[in-house]
Amino acid sequence: MLLDRLRHIGVSRIYGVPGDYNLEFLELIERTPGIAFIGTCNELNAAYAADGDARMTGIGAVLVTYGVGDLSALSAVAGAAAEGVPVVVISGMPPLHAVQSRALVHHTLADGDYDNVMACYRQFTAASARLQPATAVMETDRVLHAVQTLKRPVYIQFPSDICYVDVDVPAPSPVSVTSDPGLLAQAAQWVVQRLAQARQPVVLVDAMVRQYGLHDRVVRLCTQYGIPYAALSTARTLLPESGPLWLGQYGGQASAPGVADYVKGADCVIGLGVRFVDSTSGYFSQDLQPGALVDVQPFSLNCDGRNMQGMTAADLLDAVEQALKDRPPAHLSRPAVRPDPAAPVSSEAQPWGQAVFWDRAEAFLRPGDIVGADNGSSMVAMLHARLPAGCSLLVQPVWAAIGYSLPASLGACLAMPDRRHVLFIGDGSFQMTAQELSTLLRHRCNITIFLVNNGGYTIERMILGPQAAYNDVANWNYADLPAAMGGDMAAVLSLKAGDVSALDNALAQAERHEGLAFIEVGFAPMDAPAGLAAMGQAVRRYDYGLETPELP
Amino acid sequence: MLLDRLRHIGVSRIYGVPGDYNLEFLELIERTPGIAFIGTCNELNAAYAADGDARMTGIGAVLVTYGVGDLSALSAVAGAAAEGVPVVVISGMPPLHAVQSRALVHHTLADGDYDNVMACYRQFTAASARLQPATAVMETDRVLHAVQTLKRPVYIQFPSDICYVDVDVPAPSPVSVTSDPGLLAQAAQWVVQRLAQARQPVVLVDAMVRQYGLHDRVVRLCTQYGIPYAALSTARTLLPESGPLWLGQYGGQASAPGVADYVKGADCVIGLGVRFVDSTSGYFSQDLQPGALVDVQPFSLNCDGRNMQGMTAADLLDAVEQALKDRPPAHLSRPAVRPDPAAPVSSEAQPWGQAVFWDRAEAFLRPGDIVGADNGSSMVAMLHARLPAGCSLLVQPVWAAIGYSLPASLGACLAMPDRRHVLFIGDGSFQMTAQELSTLLRHRCNITIFLVNNGGYTIERMILGPQAAYNDVANWNYADLPAAMGGDMAAVLSLKAGDVSALDNALAQAERHEGLAFIEVGFAPMDAPAGLAAMGQAVRRYDYGLETPELP
Repeated sequence: MLLDRLRHIGVSRIYGVPGDYNLEFLELIERTPGIAFIGTCNELNAAYAADGDARMTGIGAVLVTYGVGDLSALSAVAGAAAEGVPVVVISGMPPLHAVQSRALVHHTLADGDYDNVMACYRQFTAASARLQPATAVMETDRVLHAVQTLKRPVYIQFPSDICYVDVDVPAPSPVSVTSDPGLLAQAAQWVVQRLAQARQPVVLVDAMVRQYGLHDRVVRLCTQYGIPYAALSTARTLLPESGPLWLGQYGGQASAPGVADYVKGADCVIGLGVRFVDSTSGYFSQDLQPGALVDVQPFSLNCDGRNMQGMTAADLLDAVEQALKDRPPAHLSRPAVRPDPAAPVSSEAQPWGQAVFWDRAEAFLRPGDIVGADNGSSMVAMLHARLPAGCSLLVQPVWAAIGYSLPASLGACLAMPDRRHVLFIGDGSFQMTAQELSTLLRHRCNITIFLVNNGGYTIERMILGPQAAYNDVANWNYADLPAAMGGDMAAVLSLKAGDVSALDNALAQAERHEGLAFIEVGFAPMDAPAGLAAMGQAVRRYDYGLETPELP
Repeated sequence: MLLDRLRHIGVSRIYGVPGDYNLEFLELIERTPGIAFIGTCNELNAAYAADGDARMTGIGAVLVTYGVGDLSALSAVAGAAAEGVPVVVISGMPPLHAVQSRALVHHTLADGDYDNVMACYRQFTAASARLQPATAVMETDRVLHAVQTLKRPVYIQFPSDICYVDVDVPAPSPVSVTSDPGLLAQAAQWVVQRLAQARQPVVLVDAMVRQYGLHDRVVRLCTQYGIPYAALSTARTLLPESGPLWLGQYGGQASAPGVADYVKGADCVIGLGVRFVDSTSGYFSQDLQPGALVDVQPFSLNCDGRNMQGMTAADLLDAVEQALKDRPPAHLSRPAVRPDPAAPVSSEAQPWGQAVFWDRAEAFLRPGDIVGADNGSSMVAMLHARLPAGCSLLVQPVWAAIGYSLPASLGACLAMPDRRHVLFIGDGSFQMTAQELSTLLRHRCNITIFLVNNGGYTIERMILGPQAAYNDVANWNYADLPAAMGGDMAAVLSLKAGDVSALDNALAQAERHEGLAFIEVGFAPMDAPAGLAAMGQAVRRYDYGLETPELP
């Protein structure tokens, strides 16, 4: 029943790890066409993979076992909650007879408490349920309704002994949230009025556009009415990042050149799900004119000090588009805020270091690539890079867990097997979740992984302790890992580059390679992309009230 | 202040991962003699390592960063709670000014909620606190008192901006829990009376003996009064496992041969912290005579239907010993319940398989080894093995998380560098936490690791899906990992054995080797130690009500 419902809402892969309490659920998956189980090395990675999959497809799913499994996945699920990613977490739990008798079983504290794991998940999910036959259908539908409408993780406990209980299952009812027509018209009028009065309007997009599939609506609105748009780091690559209307990334003082000034000059900022987080706002340096923000949220609008509930952002955008249909485009002039196109890739005479690496890396990207970048140097570099048309950037700037991107790329690869995947990840991040390289190899994913080896947690060095031993990590022979993890080395490219010509050679080989390519690039510990030092300083000031990375 | 207190209660190593909210705490550690920071690859592994350390030394500590860190460690902390291991978890959290203003910062859900992580930790800890200058000393002392007396994990949130706040710190007061003399005398009298009346008394030990350091007291009591003793799997190697009084492991129908019958025949079972969990009792097949159990718990006694609070187990054992001092030993006759000493190691003619491997492995062990065995085949095999005198078994039978033993062995190695360490771990378990092999290599630990490669989750195959693909894991070239993970291969032994002579050769080399030895041994997927199939059947029946590993 649950599996039919999952398939109905678009789940075709469930990531996870077998455990004694979920084995019959796994048997059910094996018998369900259209849903595949993707085993991962551990549960944290399974949930990250489901997150990566969900960002591509709109829904992800994880199957774990109780206690040891769902608690191991919790941080990744909280990450999905922080970033608004819809993931269904299913935990095979001890049999109902054990729960009801408060039996002391393994994978629990063995004190009869079966509520503690649920108490944790309740903190980080939009809905949760423990299934039992009498209420299984209603509870399943309630929870799956929440994941679809609220676009955050949900959690289902599935006792092992009820997998095969037959229940009457009505046809699934379609999930829709409708808007109140009167309130919607009123809200649309507010927005249209503000746009009509605006001398310098701008659209500022956040993750809501991904969550609710608003891409086409936003593009139409901006194009039709000639409104320039910018994106927070949480919303990069959701809209086209070229053309006259694209301003660049907005993040307060950490914006792309010129974008902050333009947004500050705007008298009407149509915010689409905007949320200013320290890491997406240059530490709260966003600077909008008072009252400029027209704050569109998934089911509400804040405008001119008034709040309106009862409609959806999609309906609101439709209504605004409709109202503007017969008006001429605003023909707004817009200053060229973007820097000129990137200079041609530098010659080999350039000294080796991250500067030349990121130049080359940017040039390596092709239209349509899915580009993962782990937290730290890689994400900072990619957020500053110009990505070719149709690229999707896979980053996690709010939860900001290092190690996220490797398993998330697994999910993205399996969700989008026909696109090329590229991942940039530092050594410290990679070690967090390294075993999932094995699963990328096992599924013969088409991904080029750049392992940025700078001997530790460079992002932390930029904050505090540049020379401190605690920021060092062990130095692995990363390029040997694909073979050690069982990769079919006839189909895998594994290289190491420590100078420009080796890098160029590696890039040329990777360019021609179909399948997994793994390229280790080595740098000095404090060599970092532009932007990381500034970020380190902002963090240091905010967290510790300190100005320098050395203690007084 | 916190660091001084930690040192005072015996912490000399703190495992963890740097993050922006804990960097100043790391700086403090660097300046504190007597406490070392041990960086691990991720936080789950850090907490497992602290658990392993705490089992050896009596206290463990972890330092993580907020949200991404502490939630990643939660499953391991819950494991320490389930198994009664005292671990102090310190989370460097966002600055108090951010907490108080409910700022939207990274590593949170960015919704202003700073209570959700605490809500999770509260489920699995004996005490928790968020430090702030005004109450820091009292709160620290309260939490550290709890970890010392209750022997379960505790959790401290340390906001980043208060690391350097000076507070007046009184000298630490000693932690002691005293017994009410009158109640203690009464309780002791009950126990002595039961012992005096007993025709066949037995002592049954559980993890409380480790937690509260009762080893010497129990040995004296048993020896002085001639009482045979048995141990649950959670308490193996806590007491000497040879000599006339040692009965063997007790676990209901899963007991060592003869032990269940002896315990069933006992008219007085002195239980020391006994807790019958599915996995430690042969699925609740413990069989004691009605009323036979004299149930000694850390701070209470249940005896003849009466409950007595207000004294400690240590004081009770002392009082009982004192009362028995002048009585003659009971000179109890005891049937020889143990099998004869292990047969001499089989000849090379024996066919390759787990049977011959576990025979050889048992013979490889030396007195005083610390023997880790991961959940599944390895633990089952080692619980059936006869361990030489003075060995310590590192297992996690209640929480039963696969992957536990590799990072836990790191903690044990660093806690006990002068003892030889041996670890048995399956491929599925190893892949869970594989990166921590790197940290064992980095610290040049003296450990021989046997990687039992049988192509997947054999323990799950024994329960359900013997041929199912979901129970397969990727086949790594495990013996190549020490080199790939940066091991100094001049000091590391890495070998692979697939037949008896290769195994004998590997064992001979490992026997002579100082440092890390890694030996991969390969088997067919359903080849497993005696006992695993029976365990699988018991689990299957309990979880699913099924009799066979194939579905009807």
